[in-house]
Amino acid sequence: MNETDTEIFSLAANTLRCLAADEVQTANSGHPGVALGLADVAAVLWLRHLKVYGGDTQWADRDRFVMSGGHASSLLYALLHLAGYPITMDDLKKFRQLGSITPGHPEAGVVPGVETTTGPLGQGIAAAVGMAIAERMQAARYNKDGAELVSHRTWVTCGDGDLEEGISHEACSLAGNLGLSNLILLYDANTISIEGRVSITMNDDTRLRFEGYGWKVLECDGHNLTDIDRALTEAETSDRPVIVICNTVIGKGSPNKADSASCHGAPLGADELRLTKQALGFDPDATFFVPDSVRALFAERVAAMKRVRDAWQTKADAIFAADPALAAAWTAAQHDTLPALSGVLPTFDPAKAVSTRVASGKVLNAIAPVIPWLIGGSADLAPSTMTYLDGYRDIAKGDFSGRNFRFGVRELAMAAVMNGVANHGGFRIFGGTFFVFSDYCRPALRVAALMGVPVIYVFTHDSFAVGEDGPTHEPVEQLPALRMMPGVCVFRPADANETAIGWQIALERKDGPTVLVLSRQNLPVLDPALYPTDGARRGGYVLWQRDPSKTPDAILIATGSEVSLALDTAKADSRNIRVVSLPSWDLFDRQSVAYRDSVLPPAVTKRMAVEAAAPFGWERYVGVNGTTLGMTGFGASGPAGKLAEHFGFTPANLAARLSAYLAQ
Amino acid sequence: MNETDTEIFSLAANTLRCLAADEVQTANSGHPGVALGLADVAAVLWLRHLKVYGGDTQWADRDRFVMSGGHASSLLYALLHLAGYPITMDDLKKFRQLGSITPGHPEAGVVPGVETTTGPLGQGIAAAVGMAIAERMQAARYNKDGAELVSHRTWVTCGDGDLEEGISHEACSLAGNLGLSNLILLYDANTISIEGRVSITMNDDTRLRFEGYGWKVLECDGHNLTDIDRALTEAETSDRPVIVICNTVIGKGSPNKADSASCHGAPLGADELRLTKQALGFDPDATFFVPDSVRALFAERVAAMKRVRDAWQTKADAIFAADPALAAAWTAAQHDTLPALSGVLPTFDPAKAVSTRVASGKVLNAIAPVIPWLIGGSADLAPSTMTYLDGYRDIAKGDFSGRNFRFGVRELAMAAVMNGVANHGGFRIFGGTFFVFSDYCRPALRVAALMGVPVIYVFTHDSFAVGEDGPTHEPVEQLPALRMMPGVCVFRPADANETAIGWQIALERKDGPTVLVLSRQNLPVLDPALYPTDGARRGGYVLWQRDPSKTPDAILIATGSEVSLALDTAKADSRNIRVVSLPSWDLFDRQSVAYRDSVLPPAVTKRMAVEAAAPFGWERYVGVNGTTLGMTGFGASGPAGKLAEHFGFTPANLAARLSAYLAQ
Repeated sequence: MNETDTEIFSLAANTLRCLAADEVQTANSGHPGVALGLADVAAVLWLRHLKVYGGDTQWADRDRFVMSGGHASSLLYALLHLAGYPITMDDLKKFRQLGSITPGHPEAGVVPGVETTTGPLGQGIAAAVGMAIAERMQAARYNKDGAELVSHRTWVTCGDGDLEEGISHEACSLAGNLGLSNLILLYDANTISIEGRVSITMNDDTRLRFEGYGWKVLECDGHNLTDIDRALTEAETSDRPVIVICNTVIGKGSPNKADSASCHGAPLGADELRLTKQALGFDPDATFFVPDSVRALFAERVAAMKRVRDAWQTKADAIFAADPALAAAWTAAQHDTLPALSGVLPTFDPAKAVSTRVASGKVLNAIAPVIPWLIGGSADLAPSTMTYLDGYRDIAKGDFSGRNFRFGVRELAMAAVMNGVANHGGFRIFGGTFFVFSDYCRPALRVAALMGVPVIYVFTHDSFAVGEDGPTHEPVEQLPALRMMPGVCVFRPADANETAIGWQIALERKDGPTVLVLSRQNLPVLDPALYPTDGARRGGYVLWQRDPSKTPDAILIATGSEVSLALDTAKADSRNIRVVSLPSWDLFDRQSVAYRDSVLPPAVTKRMAVEAAAPFGWERYVGVNGTTLGMTGFGASGPAGKLAEHFGFTPANLAARLSAYLAQ
Repeated sequence: MNETDTEIFSLAANTLRCLAADEVQTANSGHPGVALGLADVAAVLWLRHLKVYGGDTQWADRDRFVMSGGHASSLLYALLHLAGYPITMDDLKKFRQLGSITPGHPEAGVVPGVETTTGPLGQGIAAAVGMAIAERMQAARYNKDGAELVSHRTWVTCGDGDLEEGISHEACSLAGNLGLSNLILLYDANTISIEGRVSITMNDDTRLRFEGYGWKVLECDGHNLTDIDRALTEAETSDRPVIVICNTVIGKGSPNKADSASCHGAPLGADELRLTKQALGFDPDATFFVPDSVRALFAERVAAMKRVRDAWQTKADAIFAADPALAAAWTAAQHDTLPALSGVLPTFDPAKAVSTRVASGKVLNAIAPVIPWLIGGSADLAPSTMTYLDGYRDIAKGDFSGRNFRFGVRELAMAAVMNGVANHGGFRIFGGTFFVFSDYCRPALRVAALMGVPVIYVFTHDSFAVGEDGPTHEPVEQLPALRMMPGVCVFRPADANETAIGWQIALERKDGPTVLVLSRQNLPVLDPALYPTDGARRGGYVLWQRDPSKTPDAILIATGSEVSLALDTAKADSRNIRVVSLPSWDLFDRQSVAYRDSVLPPAVTKRMAVEAAAPFGWERYVGVNGTTLGMTGFGASGPAGKLAEHFGFTPANLAARLSAYLAQ
């Protein structure tokens, strides 16, 4: 970087500072410190390294930029504005206002150019790892004979807080293991946290830590533009993931608040903002001001990036024209075009009991060949979750042609990596672990729901039937706890055939996460001739009734492994009991009132639910005068059969409970 | 260790191997591989280093032993049996059986000698960090003039899975920052995970990683008794936390299954078990066999430890006799003897609105002087969660006399460290973060509930009223998701006075975690003269009714910040509306039917709930024909007032909704 460059880049960085601070001041809310501190790094990155074109935010081969410390959103929006994204100066003035496209934290799907929603610290790093993996997987599939259809990087900025979070360890250890040379982490090392100096909570030697992960570690003066440019250039030539430790000063430019926690989470204040602008050589009375030279500098970059993007399109068109099969594969994957699954989905023999996790594994392996972009794995539990795609390779360092992820014992990173893969596009991803450990996934599953990305969870070992491993491994409250998360489809199939339906629903869904909740233990396969399970598509349906022509004496509602139990109990009962299978509350609740009333007639108020989970929320279906056989506490360690007796999930106990209830 | 030692210790280790494998084989369930692999390290630790006495499991100055990879429980139970704990051979034979004291994973409160419940990987490490901190805090308080009342270590074993989990990063980074020289982590590096070689998921250089945390790193051959003893001896003299990388072979001793994933999670099988015993020089036909020489060796250790413990008691008695004030302080802290809080708890001026988080901070600071063993902190949010104890020092490296924790941005480790402090005893601990990030705490909060330890959570910023930070920071589903967790008391106070009651309830509770859910925004202080909030102690109560002598026309139920909203709405309504404040569902549900019916008369079926959270579960109180004003989706970014209008949490909208409902 020569002297002229330095001068104009410095002006650009200071323009970003003033814009970001103006946004925060206007909103009277936000985080100016990190925006001011990161402005120099951001300017060099966006003006010299990042391969993006604001005129085409969906360009498949663009670099991905993730701001993991999402509270620096004011800086990001200023960058997007200057870089030609459809974000106007007016949008910047509406920072953090209801309905604006410039919300408090960067939200994918709301802000053009935001690749993933960030805010919960550390998750952006893991999502970026997912994006980098997706790129490598695309390259392995579509780059042929030297024709590079796919070649982009994922850049991610983060702060001390991101690196304190456990997910940073999980994700960066995984990235090191996979040798992701296309991933560059820019660590804004400003030594300040909300409570004060970072040293009061963390004294990690970040260099050693990341060398321990197998990363390349670079360092730069985060306010020396030449030094930043040198480090970023070096980072681009690495054969493994890179962390650039950017030594910065929080609030850089603010005469009285720089290097203190006071500028972290509150506006600078009108006076200090004026002083800051003065110190940076800007007119203290001008707000949202962009010098012409800075506009021109960004415009030049935009034009250059347009040429790069157009050249890529020309190249892609040629590649696709020469190889229609490749083009078709690319297009189907990019659009996640679901093929017809009839004839593909396996059918299950009613004579042979099978756990829904094993059924899920069979379904998964049946559909894998027809959806080549379907990939996934588990958090070191593949032999238990049945999530391995047989006959396909692992996704591994140096070979990303496979389809099986090895996430390791890293449930939260798995969830966030899944988000990143989904954000990147070109793949459909699933991830599995024991249901009880869904608690670890929640923070990232929530972000998936917020973004509306169609990741698929395979949660197995879904009740006390886990058995001997005991209460630490037996889910109880996880089922209702996921049902209430907005935007999540929860599906707990009663048997193998309902499991196939669950997979179909998950694959058809494009606007949010689906959670399949599966049994460890074998379950009877309901004979489709006697018990058509198609109704599962609607979330709930009448499975059986002794005399369907008459009003039922009572309704027994169950999900998953308890459906067979309910069915056996009802069939052994002389009364006219209706059995309802309710695999998905959210799907059922979205049906018409007429349909719901046909399944659960309002006139029939005698209702009982049976589910091996915390009974929380069942009043919705059984009413306050209904009853529920559920789990009132945690599980226990013992053989599953003994536990079933202990907790009352036996035909005898259910029959007794039902009779007692009906006698009330 | 001389040759004779080596021989007998080797026999002891092999005895542990056979016992553990017999347990697993008899249960036909369990994890023999890790037990066999860790047996040598465990033998040296328990026979030469660990300061425990099985005859007094509550000895305050005992070393703490935590098995973070809790699936090695069969080994732990064998150790406890031989080390004189009240675990019989018969108990070992009931391994993993319902009602036994030898459950699948080590459970505190169930198994004598188990210091904390483990199973969810990594949490044991963090709990151990909590125990080590507790020891240092006790030492800082009670060791005076060279008299060492407290001086013990915390030893923790872990495997690859524990170190893959993010919580291991959070906890070990924190331990390094605090310089916990009394913490020794024994890493069972056996290179095998459930899915195969660990290298398929993790290639960390653990040495670099932990040096990065400021730990001392030692290494040993985990099957060379002399080398193990050398490493453990060296570990005991460190001035900072130590990790001993013990290079081991999973399933060591099993001729055909050692060093493979096949011995991880399934019994060896009868044949392989025989072969193993033969290979170890044991009679293949003998089960649960302990050679006399091994019995004698352990008995010798037990006797020696009894002398150490008796000497400590003598010393302690002398110290206490010489310093009655110290004795009183120690005893009160050990028993967590709650002083009378009347006159201590602040009262709040009804003329001045205050957020419940600020009220909580005032309550906390008022009670801090009278409960000196009350300590706590936040996950880098003290200025927001109001959890700082003013006038007290930080808990920091080299000075553990303080009372304020700096957990850093490490919510999950905070939760597990809290568990460890509670397990250790001598302190009452609270921890705070934003309510939305309670999701991160869940896996360890669950273990707290399972163990029944009385940790206290201060979750603030409890609704969309977070405002500009947007949906990533606005809790919606967290409130019902915590209500359904067994054993957790959730309390969401309506105002400052209910907040004081919430703290009192939390402090009085001794058998499980309490969660205080607090507002960011100011709330009116309900005038105690008009609205006595004492009923909050019962979880729910009638706050107001226009004409209490008549049957109400409808009941409006609310919690937290929505109580004032409900009250204002009801007072502006000409009908005879009853307002019920329901800060704690679990407390309310535990009241008598008569009391509950007096608050919510069954005859009054017109009921409406208002709560700024997912409405999941409210049918329990409003009935299926009732209605709820809740949050049907995620929050949004904008000023809190605008969001209140947007989501309908205004008196006008509530009144309209109520009227429409009553007109139905």
